Amino acid sequence: MSQRALSVSRMTGNRSTFADWYQAVVREADMAEPSPVRGAMVIKPWGYGVWEEMQRDLDRRIKETGHQNAYFPLFIPLSFIAKEAEHVEGFAKEMAVVTHHRLKNIDGKLVPDPEARLEEPYIVRPTSETIIGDAFSRWIKSHRDLPVLLNQWANVVRWEMRPRLFLRTTEFLWQEGHTAHASEKEAVEETMRMLEVYRAFAEDTLAMPVISGEKPANERFPGAVATYSIEAMMQDGKALQAGTSHYLGTHFAEAQNIRFQNDAGELAYCHTTSWGLSTRMVGGVIMTHGDDDGLRLPPAVAPRQVVIVPMLRDKPEDAQVLEFADGLAQALRGQRCFDERLRVLVDTRGQKSADKRWNWVRRGAPIIVEIGARDAASGTVTFMRRDVLRDGDKVKSHALPRDEFVAKVPAMLVEMQQGLFDAAKKRTVANIRSDITSWDALVEYFGAVGDDENSEFKGWVRAPWARPEGAELEAIDQRLKTLKLTLRNAPADQPKSVGPCLFTGKPGVEEVLISRAY
Amino acid sequence: MSQRALSVSRMTGNRSTFADWYQAVVREADMAEPSPVRGAMVIKPWGYGVWEEMQRDLDRRIKETGHQNAYFPLFIPLSFIAKEAEHVEGFAKEMAVVTHHRLKNIDGKLVPDPEARLEEPYIVRPTSETIIGDAFSRWIKSHRDLPVLLNQWANVVRWEMRPRLFLRTTEFLWQEGHTAHASEKEAVEETMRMLEVYRAFAEDTLAMPVISGEKPANERFPGAVATYSIEAMMQDGKALQAGTSHYLGTHFAEAQNIRFQNDAGELAYCHTTSWGLSTRMVGGVIMTHGDDDGLRLPPAVAPRQVVIVPMLRDKPEDAQVLEFADGLAQALRGQRCFDERLRVLVDTRGQKSADKRWNWVRRGAPIIVEIGARDAASGTVTFMRRDVLRDGDKVKSHALPRDEFVAKVPAMLVEMQQGLFDAAKKRTVANIRSDITSWDALVEYFGAVGDDENSEFKGWVRAPWARPEGAELEAIDQRLKTLKLTLRNAPADQPKSVGPCLFTGKPGVEEVLISRAY
Repeated sequence: MSQRALSVSRMTGNRSTFADWYQAVVREADMAEPSPVRGAMVIKPWGYGVWEEMQRDLDRRIKETGHQNAYFPLFIPLSFIAKEAEHVEGFAKEMAVVTHHRLKNIDGKLVPDPEARLEEPYIVRPTSETIIGDAFSRWIKSHRDLPVLLNQWANVVRWEMRPRLFLRTTEFLWQEGHTAHASEKEAVEETMRMLEVYRAFAEDTLAMPVISGEKPANERFPGAVATYSIEAMMQDGKALQAGTSHYLGTHFAEAQNIRFQNDAGELAYCHTTSWGLSTRMVGGVIMTHGDDDGLRLPPAVAPRQVVIVPMLRDKPEDAQVLEFADGLAQALRGQRCFDERLRVLVDTRGQKSADKRWNWVRRGAPIIVEIGARDAASGTVTFMRRDVLRDGDKVKSHALPRDEFVAKVPAMLVEMQQGLFDAAKKRTVANIRSDITSWDALVEYFGAVGDDENSEFKGWVRAPWARPEGAELEAIDQRLKTLKLTLRNAPADQPKSVGPCLFTGKPGVEEVLISRAY
Repeated sequence: MSQRALSVSRMTGNRSTFADWYQAVVREADMAEPSPVRGAMVIKPWGYGVWEEMQRDLDRRIKETGHQNAYFPLFIPLSFIAKEAEHVEGFAKEMAVVTHHRLKNIDGKLVPDPEARLEEPYIVRPTSETIIGDAFSRWIKSHRDLPVLLNQWANVVRWEMRPRLFLRTTEFLWQEGHTAHASEKEAVEETMRMLEVYRAFAEDTLAMPVISGEKPANERFPGAVATYSIEAMMQDGKALQAGTSHYLGTHFAEAQNIRFQNDAGELAYCHTTSWGLSTRMVGGVIMTHGDDDGLRLPPAVAPRQVVIVPMLRDKPEDAQVLEFADGLAQALRGQRCFDERLRVLVDTRGQKSADKRWNWVRRGAPIIVEIGARDAASGTVTFMRRDVLRDGDKVKSHALPRDEFVAKVPAMLVEMQQGLFDAAKKRTVANIRSDITSWDALVEYFGAVGDDENSEFKGWVRAPWARPEGAELEAIDQRLKTLKLTLRNAPADQPKSVGPCLFTGKPGVEEVLISRAY
């Protein structure tokens, strides 16, 4: 079989094909689909299963760093949102507004009941700083109440005019951490701690290499003093902002009167932080690990790590095949990997086994086993590894005696997880250019104004800059826009000295990442 | 110490006190609090922790019965809701309506942007039959696609004019199962299977005895053919509907064109079901197990099953006390109970240890350990059991050698779980009267029209009835309302023959439960 499981290849060298390929994987791997609600998606069981595995792992990391989960209202009174000026400015254009609390049949048509208009409209939360800050202002009285370390798993809504499944949707799922501290030092430490939690989660659990760093001023969260991100390179060379952590200073504390009595008995404003990671990460996993046969899931977040397809033929041997398959599944479930029991499925759906096999290839199940009558009789397990599916164009099949297979699966999954990370890391490192140090060279490399969607694969440029803010930064941002480029972050890991600023020729103060982005 | 941890007692024999007591427990146990959003609550970490334990256990039961989780949009186009006539009739009066997707600053005031008015308003989901039914209509083509067995964990909104924390809130969290089947038989089986899952969850995990049965026609879910519930008796004798499972017939399938090609090649409508259980259950746990010292949590859903309070005095011995406490916690975490590792906390907050002890009593942590310097030196563990906190008025303290304590904790927690269930079961059984068989006797027992809030404790009445529908049922419902009573359900477990109908004197067909209710 040399035909690929998808009809679209990701790698013909231009981005429109990559976008088609992405859509094909999301569809063919049964991850999600558009819904009748503008910009919102339906997350199908296999896609949601990946999110559940992500949640479980990240939730553990969040709790291990001392945070507790809580839940705050979906609705935010309009006046709350308006309290922090930059915050409302940043979100006002994409807010869903609730104005009525009842429907009424008027002249045979169901409409919002004019008599049930809200005095103050509610916003469907785009993020929860203001509604959680309100609770903080009630809960925090003394330094003994600090730090407050909370996290919330929730849905949020930001109206999206150009939606893309998982990457940009009007409604998405995420966790948002919100903390309050007695000092800037503690709050900044918290901000960096959670950035590191995101890095470790992305790299160790999603096998997705990222670069941690601080966003330039124009890319800060509305209302933040500093915003940090992890950025990941997708297979088309674009950057995906994959998680952000914000030091909010006392901006929100001042807007909402979050104060505490310090050691000296004086009232002082809290320093707050927030940090979030969303279902966008599912899109990141697809664009990091997918290939022309569909999705390849890192075993740590695969809802099923081993899928067993019994090849049934409506013949008496079927019973033996099923018995062998079930026994194998049982034995595998007794094994552990990544600190959890193996997740194993016997796929007994009433379809052709070849169709089922290719369905699991497209879905990216790490190990796919096919059991026929001969396998059952001889006690052999024939399987495919999704990470190295083919030898040249041919699908590669492996065979092992049953007990040996059962014993080897955990190590095989760990090896796959590492292999996916290594390949992505190698690709990322190989595609960050540090030798482009002037604006002209940048223009030459990325090509001048043109149709970004059809431009060839380019990676990132890492270059020195003077870290300007205000009008000067705005001017740089505008120049970059003509190349469809953006500033991603200034990596935490910086050289001792840097050359002159790529944009202005002034003395550089740090290196910054420049690239096209999602 | 003979003083109780709460200032309000639940059992002075009238309901206004019980309501005050409930509010006091919710507040003093740090479970939840009202929010600035009308009718919506903030679920605090301890309350949310209980919900997380419930979720984990119920999610496992839902998956073990073959369901998968997925996620559907929060917003529902108004036209979808309007498709099923009874459905929209049932929910129209309590719907939050989104009418705009942007705010705008007009004359210095932030308002919904008139130019961003939605052509078709969206409803914030009060339940998801219609938006999920729409997906079903796209996904289901053939009998080979059936059954579809999905579940969703989500927030829902039903506008609430008289909110009560956990019991009735404008926004609440729940799971909603939605399934589609080829036949009535299979769909009814599914409906009953999930009712049984709820019963087992309530009784085994929440130690909350319930009675499963079918709701009378007037209490059906809007659009359902049949609605089943589990009903639990609270300590004030009122009933709490604690979970419902609906057989929807082909009503929603017809409204949304959910059809499949059957074996014979003909198009047929699917039979669908839905079933849900919400954060209301947290309120049920409080009203089932709480006492005058606060909450008592069933160990299976206690976020912390053992809390260790080191008694620190800012003296050199503190180090030894802390070391002993941490070592004990480590040893306990090596133990398992209810198929999970023990959940243990060492409470090192900077407060007086007596305050911390009482805080954990009010929160209902099953086992509370206090470690002083003498305990650490002698290797003794001094502890309180929250299920049997007192001997008469005095708080009862136990002491065991460390290793013996560690070994005994799992069995102790199992015993507590069973003890809480047994006590609640005994109370429930003892307070269902079967000897009230006429309307006059019912009036005499519950008292005529009066202030329900101040009436004495009454349990439930189980009586024969003729199971009328339509106008006759409506008349009975109105009569019951004069006594502030409702029909709860007709228990699944019925005697072989029943006497005449309590309401009409006609031949009875089954027994039904009558009570006041939340």
